[in-house]
Amino acid sequence: MRNILIIGAGRSASSLIKYLLDKSEKEQLQLTIADLSLELAEKKANNHKNARAIEFDIFNEKQRHEEIQKAIIIISMLPAHMHIEVAKDCITYKKHMVTASYISPAMQELDDLAKENGLVLMNEIGLDPGIDHMSAMKVIDEIRDNGGKIMLFESFCGGLVAPESDNNLWNYKFTWNPRNVVLAGQGGAAKFIQEGTYKYIPYNKLFRRTEFLEIEGYGRFEGYANRDSLKYRSVYKLDNALTVYRGTIRRVGYSRAWDILVQLGMTDDSYIIENSEEMTYREFTNSFLPYHPTDTVEIKLRHAQKIDQDDIIWDKLLELDIFNGNKKVELKNATPAQILEKILSEKWTLQPEDKDMIVMYHKFGYEINGEKKQIDSTMVCIGDDQTYTAMAKTVGLPVAIAAIKILNGEIKTPGVQLPIAKEVYIPILKELEEYGVLFNETEKEYMGYNPLNVSS
Amino acid sequence: MRNILIIGAGRSASSLIKYLLDKSEKEQLQLTIADLSLELAEKKANNHKNARAIEFDIFNEKQRHEEIQKAIIIISMLPAHMHIEVAKDCITYKKHMVTASYISPAMQELDDLAKENGLVLMNEIGLDPGIDHMSAMKVIDEIRDNGGKIMLFESFCGGLVAPESDNNLWNYKFTWNPRNVVLAGQGGAAKFIQEGTYKYIPYNKLFRRTEFLEIEGYGRFEGYANRDSLKYRSVYKLDNALTVYRGTIRRVGYSRAWDILVQLGMTDDSYIIENSEEMTYREFTNSFLPYHPTDTVEIKLRHAQKIDQDDIIWDKLLELDIFNGNKKVELKNATPAQILEKILSEKWTLQPEDKDMIVMYHKFGYEINGEKKQIDSTMVCIGDDQTYTAMAKTVGLPVAIAAIKILNGEIKTPGVQLPIAKEVYIPILKELEEYGVLFNETEKEYMGYNPLNVSS
Repeated sequence: MRNILIIGAGRSASSLIKYLLDKSEKEQLQLTIADLSLELAEKKANNHKNARAIEFDIFNEKQRHEEIQKAIIIISMLPAHMHIEVAKDCITYKKHMVTASYISPAMQELDDLAKENGLVLMNEIGLDPGIDHMSAMKVIDEIRDNGGKIMLFESFCGGLVAPESDNNLWNYKFTWNPRNVVLAGQGGAAKFIQEGTYKYIPYNKLFRRTEFLEIEGYGRFEGYANRDSLKYRSVYKLDNALTVYRGTIRRVGYSRAWDILVQLGMTDDSYIIENSEEMTYREFTNSFLPYHPTDTVEIKLRHAQKIDQDDIIWDKLLELDIFNGNKKVELKNATPAQILEKILSEKWTLQPEDKDMIVMYHKFGYEINGEKKQIDSTMVCIGDDQTYTAMAKTVGLPVAIAAIKILNGEIKTPGVQLPIAKEVYIPILKELEEYGVLFNETEKEYMGYNPLNVSS
Repeated sequence: MRNILIIGAGRSASSLIKYLLDKSEKEQLQLTIADLSLELAEKKANNHKNARAIEFDIFNEKQRHEEIQKAIIIISMLPAHMHIEVAKDCITYKKHMVTASYISPAMQELDDLAKENGLVLMNEIGLDPGIDHMSAMKVIDEIRDNGGKIMLFESFCGGLVAPESDNNLWNYKFTWNPRNVVLAGQGGAAKFIQEGTYKYIPYNKLFRRTEFLEIEGYGRFEGYANRDSLKYRSVYKLDNALTVYRGTIRRVGYSRAWDILVQLGMTDDSYIIENSEEMTYREFTNSFLPYHPTDTVEIKLRHAQKIDQDDIIWDKLLELDIFNGNKKVELKNATPAQILEKILSEKWTLQPEDKDMIVMYHKFGYEINGEKKQIDSTMVCIGDDQTYTAMAKTVGLPVAIAAIKILNGEIKTPGVQLPIAKEVYIPILKELEEYGVLFNETEKEYMGYNPLNVSS
């Protein structure tokens, strides 16, 4: 039996563990499922004869060394900043490793040692980063192999609620870390390049400069820019592309309403609201509006944000209950962002019967034989239930598939890697199709930014 | 002769040094004027027989110890974070000290030692902080001494261009550090309390929620909220006041136009613009606007910011030359804020014949014998020229006056102090009047926030 150590048995590990257990007989696998919570590890092990659940503290050095030595490959599903200690041990004990996180500078530094020892340290092989890399590089390589030159690359991804569970006005529920959703876009302008011009969108304009996307069978979506699209130029070797843009997908109308919360200041995480515990939702909302002896919070907000009486935005705000004068925040020393997260969680938490949905959309503009062409590549994945969510599948399955292919020597290029080589993405994308993670690539007329050829 | 060591001979030290030299015979003073630049120190010493100019490096410990030992009192006009080393030496060698900066936690820690040694370490005795403390405490103490109870305290201060030199559409020129003007209001929401309710204004709304102020003979001004008004409650013992608000003064219309620059993202100091050196002002402006193959930068900006064709804001933007396609930024690896500072400096730098103006406005609402009353206290100070600016006078004179009064034992309460005691503010405010720094206190009808008693 070949021992795989899986560190972290949280939500994103469900599909990953199930995949490996299902393959454990055929592939001769013995899983060690390690988590701070033994209960969680046991639940994921599900009494399977090829699984062992253990209570595991990543900061317990002795235990960490022992368990890593026992395994052939280590899958780390820890928070990104915790991988590095595991990675160093993997070098010491000559083990392969797989993570779904971005390569940190510290991780990158292990590249030479990994190569010297013939070890694969595969990273960024979840959904985003992960499936985005693989599905994009597949099309980019095909275009290049045919002699084409990439001019434009736009790529969008979003975790949403599935259409059958989409029953609020925002067309959104939390499918992942709610805090990240509240803080999305903060900490610097969004940077990208469009038709050769660098563009910067400040946070206060981010949700007003969206792009529309259409996916057959699923209707219209919108995308807002991610913080740094520029780094993808060097990763995908797109330094000569005139346009490189990455964004986050929401249903149309989400961003315009979300911007109201941004403009009010409710997403700010930089200071603590006085007496937050005792304040009502209404008082929280009022704290961002000018004082007036008689005007209501409602009219002050409508006026401050210029919201017409028949604007759907207003109904979205009402749905969040932010004018409720009876409900208390009940969070001590909370920032606006923490309070908002609580308010949203009451409305946007997935219900037991709800399903989530992952949407990915790439656009590739290229020139071949003097002709401009475009390929759009889209993927929609719907969750099975609250355990095997679309998020768990799309994050966990590529990790699991990669682990087995490394074990079996099919993925063998040593070093600190990400999945942009054909050796990696071809077999993984192929196997993902069996699990419903399927890209629909279509040739389109090249759109560019002046499709109707309008002159000034 | 009594030796005074003045560390730092920059712009803010001009009036301070002149005052002390003018008094040097009568008060038996010998000044040591110390600066990193000997030239600057010599210029300020002006060959006066009671002045000695020296080249001085605050990080040269030996020199620092020597010069501090020779003096009776040390005036530090260094940047705020550099005072602490001087203060520690003052304790060691038992010298008094005066600064115009906020008391840092490290400075506050010296309080016990200063008291044990009978030393006065006077801080926050410039303009703001300084004259604001003194002029506010004078009225607050008078109200309290008469049995009144403060309900409302609003306080505004601004450095502006004098009416006779006010010849641009923004009615503004740089009278102090331009960088601070560009970054004003960043780094967290403005916090204050209004009629018992805590209010938070995010940066992106700060310049749209101004208050109007009227000063007889000078017309109308506007004020935007400072970042933290709340700390003044404990300093002035206003913990029971329903309203405590501090703000910055500009001419009416400045903030509405400035907000356009904020909304575009031009005041952001958190990232570097690609190829900033070679870019034109027009390209800089365009980098914050969506790409379009034919629309001009002008129409895109008008549309993005919803600026009507006859709105004066547009002329203000034109005046800054931000659409100039020939002028280059010429700053390497610059942030948007650094580029904007350069653009503004070309238009807003005080010319040799220009004069500056300091404006201060306090409002005190109080209750006495069951009656609500209000006192407004205003001060306008105009600079003499480019050396003895209003800023140099209002920052430097209180420092200089305090130094002499400490020397003469009129100000004697030891410890780390700020000028809120009668012992300090009464004689200093009185002497400031001789130099044209004069407060006009007027009783007004109590305005509150519903002066017309409008019902909902």
